[in-house]
Amino acid sequence: MIAGICQSPRSTMPMSSPRIDSHATRLLVIDGATVEALVSPGEALALAEAALRKTSSGAARQDIRRTLALSGDPGTCLSMMYASLDESPYFGAKVQSVYPRNFQHGMPSHQGGVLLFDRERGEPVALIGATAITGLRTPAATAVATGALARENSCELAVIGYGEQAKRHIAAISLVRTITRVRVWGRNAEKAARFAEAESAVGFPTVAMPTARLAVDGADIVCTVTSSALPVLEGEWLSPGTHVNAVGASVAGLAEIDLACVTRSSIWVDYRPMAMVAASDLIEPLSQGLIESSHIVGEIGAVLNGAVRGRSSEAEITLYRSLGVPAEDIELANFIYQKAKDLGLGVDVPL
Amino acid sequence: MIAGICQSPRSTMPMSSPRIDSHATRLLVIDGATVEALVSPGEALALAEAALRKTSSGAARQDIRRTLALSGDPGTCLSMMYASLDESPYFGAKVQSVYPRNFQHGMPSHQGGVLLFDRERGEPVALIGATAITGLRTPAATAVATGALARENSCELAVIGYGEQAKRHIAAISLVRTITRVRVWGRNAEKAARFAEAESAVGFPTVAMPTARLAVDGADIVCTVTSSALPVLEGEWLSPGTHVNAVGASVAGLAEIDLACVTRSSIWVDYRPMAMVAASDLIEPLSQGLIESSHIVGEIGAVLNGAVRGRSSEAEITLYRSLGVPAEDIELANFIYQKAKDLGLGVDVPL
Repeated sequence: MIAGICQSPRSTMPMSSPRIDSHATRLLVIDGATVEALVSPGEALALAEAALRKTSSGAARQDIRRTLALSGDPGTCLSMMYASLDESPYFGAKVQSVYPRNFQHGMPSHQGGVLLFDRERGEPVALIGATAITGLRTPAATAVATGALARENSCELAVIGYGEQAKRHIAAISLVRTITRVRVWGRNAEKAARFAEAESAVGFPTVAMPTARLAVDGADIVCTVTSSALPVLEGEWLSPGTHVNAVGASVAGLAEIDLACVTRSSIWVDYRPMAMVAASDLIEPLSQGLIESSHIVGEIGAVLNGAVRGRSSEAEITLYRSLGVPAEDIELANFIYQKAKDLGLGVDVPL
Repeated sequence: MIAGICQSPRSTMPMSSPRIDSHATRLLVIDGATVEALVSPGEALALAEAALRKTSSGAARQDIRRTLALSGDPGTCLSMMYASLDESPYFGAKVQSVYPRNFQHGMPSHQGGVLLFDRERGEPVALIGATAITGLRTPAATAVATGALARENSCELAVIGYGEQAKRHIAAISLVRTITRVRVWGRNAEKAARFAEAESAVGFPTVAMPTARLAVDGADIVCTVTSSALPVLEGEWLSPGTHVNAVGASVAGLAEIDLACVTRSSIWVDYRPMAMVAASDLIEPLSQGLIESSHIVGEIGAVLNGAVRGRSSEAEITLYRSLGVPAEDIELANFIYQKAKDLGLGVDVPL
């Protein structure tokens, strides 16, 4: 027997959708300029440290970065990072496009927003410019790692790359070590020279070097902050005692450091589960047996929490492999949203 | 030799962050009420069909839904769905909190936003209320599946659940079949009675039934649209020839249909990779050998594209297991953003 016997169907049913009472939600949109004005460099550092500690202590619910590969240059993708921190009232996600070649068009490589939700009932409460959040938290986390791992007397800083993150890293690292000279190298010598001039003008004595090797030679701290798809730093250039921050290759398809950088260094990461799926410069030598898993000493947060060792000698080469941690974004976004609310900043819109 | 010989460090480095010229981005925020006003039920249906076809033809780059479990009731989570459609100018992500018990507080269970990006340089262009998008696309996709699978002469519709999606599903399914009577059941008899009254008042003759079994008995089309953590529909209640839409259990921890529903039916899904990780009502019987993988006939889009069979007989019980497809959200968001721009709707804000 077939279900339902249909009597002459009446076609009196309305063809329009019923009006559903929309639950009124209001959202605070906080743009990049407001973000920059709300967070001091010292605050960014403290928030990054808190996020890294929570990442390693288990007080952060988070996931590895999820990406959707898009057509175009290597590394072009949509990136999702999301976290909920045990003691924070707001959880959320940073949704960003990553266009590594945007820099050549005078645009940021990372663009998007952090959408924050109230823990109580899951209501969206804020959208915050992601370029500014990423711009603040990445160098802050690098500075925290540098503070934990670089020799106390480090003073010469080499920077490979001359984008916005290069500027920000110079400023952030100067908060944790007394940097007396910055050496910069990038593919375009003219742009590198202009960058050095601009940095020097704002108080960071910077010189552009003709090769990456000359920039790195004898530096105490080396920072790679490029969107390169091929290694820009060779391990054989590194002197004993150097601390390296490898920051730029945050998504698959990008690479900044060669195998010798990895084998010659003791390595710390920001978030091990992410490093184990996204840091191909670590995954490949591990899978090939060129390094053992103990070569990756641990997470920076675990060093800060006293659970894992830091630098073991003046001569050790330490390498911080940064991929970016969702907890960093959400810790910072909590701070920004609450401060913007308190100060009446941002644009309140219906969503 | 230790790298870098530090001469008397000068402490002339500025302690403030350098000002970075923010790249000015403007975003169009489109709220739920605007979304509802911009999309007709017929348009929603056509957009859902296009998205389901692209999902099955490979013209959609997308991923399974990613979720971050949050503390609270079963199924409470942050949900991320993201896609890029080959022929659409905007890609993006829907970021939603899922609070299954919000309904009890008069609030939507799904809240958040769809963030859209321009394909050219990855600039964020719009944030669109996600509650409205989900509210439109889910019943539209169910209606497309019902149109493809239900018997042509189906006229009796049973609905389990009386939330916003119950209303929307009645309206959407009425676009593809001539529904002469709706029977509704839900846990709270009084609320079910009020729902039936309200639906009847807007032109959908609806009666509240005292048990789920009585609601389902002899119905041509059955829709489960609950946030239940336990099955609300038993397969033994189904008559031959019924078409079932199982819609509500969209995240892990929720379940609406029992094993007999699955074993007695031929099954279609919206997006197979998602069903294979998220539809525990299918995964468990598959892993236990209670059904074979051929029991899941294929994707609805493949039926529409002519690549997979639809209903094979008047007596076959067909089951559409809906989980929600990112392509549906992004297809609809493209339409909404372009229409809002054309009409000058939405609120333009800096991000």
